[in-house]
Amino acid sequence: MMKGRLEVITFDADDTLWENEFLFRENEMRFCELVQEYADQKTALELLLKNEIKALPIYGYGIKGFVLDMVETALELSHNQVSGETIGKILALGKEQLTYPVKLIEGVEETLSALHKHYPLVMATKGDLTDQKRKIEKSGLKKYFSHIEIMSEKDESGYRSLIERLQIAPDKFLMVGNSLKSDIIPVLKIGGYAAYIPFYTTWEHEKADKPEMCDRMFALNSIQDLLSIV
Amino acid sequence: MMKGRLEVITFDADDTLWENEFLFRENEMRFCELVQEYADQKTALELLLKNEIKALPIYGYGIKGFVLDMVETALELSHNQVSGETIGKILALGKEQLTYPVKLIEGVEETLSALHKHYPLVMATKGDLTDQKRKIEKSGLKKYFSHIEIMSEKDESGYRSLIERLQIAPDKFLMVGNSLKSDIIPVLKIGGYAAYIPFYTTWEHEKADKPEMCDRMFALNSIQDLLSIV
Repeated sequence: MMKGRLEVITFDADDTLWENEFLFRENEMRFCELVQEYADQKTALELLLKNEIKALPIYGYGIKGFVLDMVETALELSHNQVSGETIGKILALGKEQLTYPVKLIEGVEETLSALHKHYPLVMATKGDLTDQKRKIEKSGLKKYFSHIEIMSEKDESGYRSLIERLQIAPDKFLMVGNSLKSDIIPVLKIGGYAAYIPFYTTWEHEKADKPEMCDRMFALNSIQDLLSIV
Repeated sequence: MMKGRLEVITFDADDTLWENEFLFRENEMRFCELVQEYADQKTALELLLKNEIKALPIYGYGIKGFVLDMVETALELSHNQVSGETIGKILALGKEQLTYPVKLIEGVEETLSALHKHYPLVMATKGDLTDQKRKIEKSGLKKYFSHIEIMSEKDESGYRSLIERLQIAPDKFLMVGNSLKSDIIPVLKIGGYAAYIPFYTTWEHEKADKPEMCDRMFALNSIQDLLSIV
């Protein structure tokens, strides 16, 4: 249905190509256990989210900022009474998450393998540079991509820079991703195409109202469904 | 002396365009004061450096990893006895460093302003994506650069990718920087030109033996001296 109209297909990575967000959710739960003598789960999660959003402009996305936010939240919840041992366990959660194996989402490999014969594929992700590079290497997917972009913010201006660098018009650009806020809405706003493939976990801060359906947006059940629209 | 031979001039950023490393040195000193009841300065700095190098493959470069390393070092030096208040102060050091004003090195603005009329200028830096983007914005230097690359590792393979992306031959590429290890040696090894401008502070881990002088390397006293060689 878009055959011949596209020049580039661009993929988000975290929770579009490989599982990612569930590691944050798991570590949030382990964090809640570590601070349970100071706060119930709901209180701990709320303060953690508040601290994450507050620190986002200076820490940016990624695991290291998340660990610093957990440490800060533990100090706040305990009025600085949290033990050094617990702080050490929070640091260890971060190191574990930073070295966790990369698990591809079902259908990714076969879909990329089919598509890369017909289109240049681009990976556009955000987050921590070192960690994203590690996941790209570990994923085994690097061979399918002609360009990889690690963006500091996936907003309209970030996507404009990307399509300028790719030297294509917005309406030759299809973005595939699981986040309405980061992958879909800004791309539709600059005149591109977007394929939305929801994943079962989405960070609170990434949640957004569904945009009005527009003929440049596709909602898919799985990544394989891409093969029937491009 | 290189007139007509170069197609691109690439600049390192931290401690080549703006001051950076002294903030790490200052925070190291403040860290030593915070843990002085557990260790003398030499012991604290040695363990911190050891922890930084150990964590580098998973944290990468940048301030957030440095803060996590300081927290870990404080826990180790105090056998987990360090107070929550002190941990909070370490986090605050990091936030302060992440929002510190960008101070250009003398001669940078006039040199870039003169050079960018004759060559495409590229900025190639490493470190934390969010923090580097912030410094680039704050520096006011963005207008002089046709391309900005934030590299995860400034090694031979990183520079090879960069010159491929720039679509030039290595001997049309001049790299300007303050670190022999990151800016000079790998560029000489892949056949490029390199201008070494030492800065008064260099991180221990960036120190390297001077390479044998080679006719593709220039040692300069200041960035303005570039104007007489290109």
